[in-house]
Amino acid sequence: MKYLVVYDITEDDVRDKVRSALKDYGGTRIQYRAFVFDKSEVEMAQIMLKVKRIIGNTKGKVMAIPICARDVDKVVTIAYKYELPEEDSVVI
Amino acid sequence: MKYLVVYDITEDDVRDKVRSALKDYGGTRIQYRAFVFDKSEVEMAQIMLKVKRIIGNTKGKVMAIPICARDVDKVVTIAYKYELPEEDSVVI
Repeated sequence: MKYLVVYDITEDDVRDKVRSALKDYGGTRIQYRAFVFDKSEVEMAQIMLKVKRIIGNTKGKVMAIPICARDVDKVVTIAYKYELPEEDSVVI
Repeated sequence: MKYLVVYDITEDDVRDKVRSALKDYGGTRIQYRAFVFDKSEVEMAQIMLKVKRIIGNTKGKVMAIPICARDVDKVVTIAYKYELPEEDSVVI
């Protein structure tokens, strides 16, 4: 199952840690604050639990949204001269 | 159909315009750079076309990701003391 993970974390260092962790856990960065994962439901839940531990009691919100195969085919993307700092932009 | 719209736009004024437009078109803001819509496929395509016109030839990427009812039920959210500047945080 594909998952879109979007995060919004107030503290810079915590946000950096979460971004780095999401990459380490196999996520593909598609926007500054969005990663795509291809994981089972259990694996994704484990990743979210790890993220929860990183966030601890700092302000933030992280969502993992499952996207079934049918929905992946219907994603609409507008992009113009778009670049990510570390990786290439990937269309899910 | 529910849609998650995530946007990443380099220029501040264009990003502000897109955010404001997404709200005007009926989106509910769930994160700084993410809105949820409940629209038909045609309506969502029309909204994305309008967003494309706003972005013009400035750098940016906007994605509209359909989330079917089954997937909405499986969204995992971690939130701690999270606040949005204008609206309340909404769980999709």
